[in-house]
Amino acid sequence: MSDKVWVGVDVGGTKTAMVLSPEPPTVLARAQFATRPAQGPKPALASIKKSIGELLAQQGLTSNAIARIGVSCGGPLDRVRGIIQSPPNLPTWDNVPIKAILEDAFRVECQVENDANAGAVAEHRFGAGQGTQNMVFLTMGTGLGGGIITDGRLYHGTKDLAGEVGHLRLTKTGPVGHNKAGSAEGWASGGGMAQVAARAVAEARKKKKKTLLAKYFGTKEGITARDVGAAAARGDAVAIEVVRSTGRRLGEVLAILVDLLNPERIVIGGLALRLGDMLLDPAREVVRREALALAATSCQIVPAELGERIGDVAALCVAMGM
Amino acid sequence: MSDKVWVGVDVGGTKTAMVLSPEPPTVLARAQFATRPAQGPKPALASIKKSIGELLAQQGLTSNAIARIGVSCGGPLDRVRGIIQSPPNLPTWDNVPIKAILEDAFRVECQVENDANAGAVAEHRFGAGQGTQNMVFLTMGTGLGGGIITDGRLYHGTKDLAGEVGHLRLTKTGPVGHNKAGSAEGWASGGGMAQVAARAVAEARKKKKKTLLAKYFGTKEGITARDVGAAAARGDAVAIEVVRSTGRRLGEVLAILVDLLNPERIVIGGLALRLGDMLLDPAREVVRREALALAATSCQIVPAELGERIGDVAALCVAMGM
Repeated sequence: MSDKVWVGVDVGGTKTAMVLSPEPPTVLARAQFATRPAQGPKPALASIKKSIGELLAQQGLTSNAIARIGVSCGGPLDRVRGIIQSPPNLPTWDNVPIKAILEDAFRVECQVENDANAGAVAEHRFGAGQGTQNMVFLTMGTGLGGGIITDGRLYHGTKDLAGEVGHLRLTKTGPVGHNKAGSAEGWASGGGMAQVAARAVAEARKKKKKTLLAKYFGTKEGITARDVGAAAARGDAVAIEVVRSTGRRLGEVLAILVDLLNPERIVIGGLALRLGDMLLDPAREVVRREALALAATSCQIVPAELGERIGDVAALCVAMGM
Repeated sequence: MSDKVWVGVDVGGTKTAMVLSPEPPTVLARAQFATRPAQGPKPALASIKKSIGELLAQQGLTSNAIARIGVSCGGPLDRVRGIIQSPPNLPTWDNVPIKAILEDAFRVECQVENDANAGAVAEHRFGAGQGTQNMVFLTMGTGLGGGIITDGRLYHGTKDLAGEVGHLRLTKTGPVGHNKAGSAEGWASGGGMAQVAARAVAEARKKKKKTLLAKYFGTKEGITARDVGAAAARGDAVAIEVVRSTGRRLGEVLAILVDLLNPERIVIGGLALRLGDMLLDPAREVVRREALALAATSCQIVPAELGERIGDVAALCVAMGM
């Protein structure tokens, strides 16, 4: 296999990346382009095929050198048939048979997996989850997704829907996430934090309390999770409390995972990387209070380790097999 | 193996049963005695050893015929070392090394497992979970326990604590279960239903509304789940609403399981056997409303099938291997 390369394709709403690797997680060659979902899948699929061909040629390789292609993409998708089914970040990608398209183009097997599951395997194999048998990975970006490793293997569930952490209910009403008000994604994601921040700033205004976030309030884009993180890093009290309250809500989600799955480690990407213990300490405190004592103390809650590389490594893990 | 027998020991707070079986789930011989936790573990352990010896002798067998012994018991316990650690229903059984005791007595391997996990495997192998790869089993008796089957195997978790469904929080305050007010066990168990019934009867009295449950109110034992079931079966409106509201709370728990684990089937013992669709229909309705549509429609919610035999079969499954 040493002269073979794995090909990973990470299809996101903003960018799509292609990587070659004879030995993951090390990347031999990489290309990326803006996905532009508004244009539909056709130009992106053409660019994926072209880029893979070019990356191979640059290395003096042909498609015969490909061991397998792995595609990591937002769900929902039909994993067995390899069909992308209009994920929220790629609404125009309606029943795109990407597995068949890439298998036709390169005459080699292609596997497809949703990005939360692929990320879980990437962190388990090469990141913060190494050495664990039971682990949960949470993508805490705009949304809140999850991937579950049980007894050393990715757990898919019956219809490949296991780990839909963002859809759990935390409260009867509240910020909206995953089309559900009061859901885990509504409270504990970048999108949720932005909603909580908007309320906090409105509240601060009433009380004539100053906050760096005031300038984003009511603008076209509104307050983003990134604005909150930046203001919190500069010591803004309102922003810090928004981060901490998001951390406490995250803790409620983690307590459910701890009591149900008794994982050795919960690895959290996205916001947890940028906000660190300002987010995670309140979450850990809630887990200690809410979850069963032995299950809580035997579970580490840590940020993901692969950082910006996670998409590349996740796609390579799909190629290598889940 | 055809001349060998599996030995199952089901240690409960009320009774302890011993069974022999050359081919589970069929039971060849069985004995039981009252456990009497107040007397401590010693007399019970002596009775277990004596009973197993007698059952073997009745069949013309010696301990050489035992393939393996399996003990099913309430948690917490140290599964690897086979030590029972003061479960709530056996408070005097403090660090009882039952594995070592039975291995010494019979010179054959003994395995120990908590009863919710053993019940999950029993229903998966021989009951309502047959043919599924991903299943959750709930014991809905005085308490609410759970066992999780992922990809065809029992999932233990890191410290054998997976499936602690009863400890999940449903509301900030509420009936107490698993030492936690507002927990899943507080709302959706026999003990929880009794608490809800007591409030409902107090409310009915204020409104001068008649209910068959009134006669149990304020008695020494109070209203039990069994009283509620009996009154509901006779058409008592207050009792029926208590059952239905318990069903709706159960539905909230099931929605969490469906979104996180995407099981093919959830099998529910105890109350679900006795109350059937009066309990399960409101639960199914909440799952349809709360959980992700595809995950909800692909999950059957059914009563357990082994009924009164579950303890025996569960202990035999522990003997056979989890």
